[in-house]
Amino acid sequence: MTYVFIGIGGIVGSLLRYFISVWSDHLWIHAFPFGTLIANLTGSFFLGVFTRMYSENEKENRMLVLSIGTGAIGSYTTMSTLNTDIINLIDNGEISLVFLYILISLFGGLGAAWLGYFRTLKKRGHK
Amino acid sequence: MTYVFIGIGGIVGSLLRYFISVWSDHLWIHAFPFGTLIANLTGSFFLGVFTRMYSENEKENRMLVLSIGTGAIGSYTTMSTLNTDIINLIDNGEISLVFLYILISLFGGLGAAWLGYFRTLKKRGHK
Repeated sequence: MTYVFIGIGGIVGSLLRYFISVWSDHLWIHAFPFGTLIANLTGSFFLGVFTRMYSENEKENRMLVLSIGTGAIGSYTTMSTLNTDIINLIDNGEISLVFLYILISLFGGLGAAWLGYFRTLKKRGHK
Repeated sequence: MTYVFIGIGGIVGSLLRYFISVWSDHLWIHAFPFGTLIANLTGSFFLGVFTRMYSENEKENRMLVLSIGTGAIGSYTTMSTLNTDIINLIDNGEISLVFLYILISLFGGLGAAWLGYFRTLKKRGHK
């Protein structure tokens, strides 16, 4: 049953990332991987919120954590596409875009997760 | 049909990441997110190889690129879990692990994608 929950989450997350990548394909500069960036920033934010809400009582909320956290949001964001995007940008000589992309992905993603985790909800019974 | 291919890839990728995270749960230091790290490094390598092999003739190999690249490997690796792991490590005061984790994820992931993309195969008819 665990696998079914994670698998359904995986379908939702990967398709959502695909839709965003198709939708964002002609935003601003064609070479810039906006789709991956949008998925990674929004996904990091929502996983921050979600972790804060549910993972403390992981046993109680196990199926929810696995389906939404591990399955959907985990699959919605991606590290391999980010890295391959970077290698492709380097291969095409787009060095300034490489730095922009890495900086926004790294600090933006961490900032989004931080915002989701620490700033959107009061931790239940802690701090 | 496109959605089915991506969805099946998403199931495979998310379950594989889950299996690795369960298997690696007690490696070395319990607090260190080995599962995410292993998935992100190996996934970046394989997407590098895969992109080099297939994305140049993207139209011809469209279903393969979507199913394996976007679906499976994209879902296997994760950026949101990486960021939430980092926030959790910070929240637990594991600052030295935070730096180790970020450095290995960032440079290791890029290095793995680079290795996969530039070093494993000769680009078909290019360079």
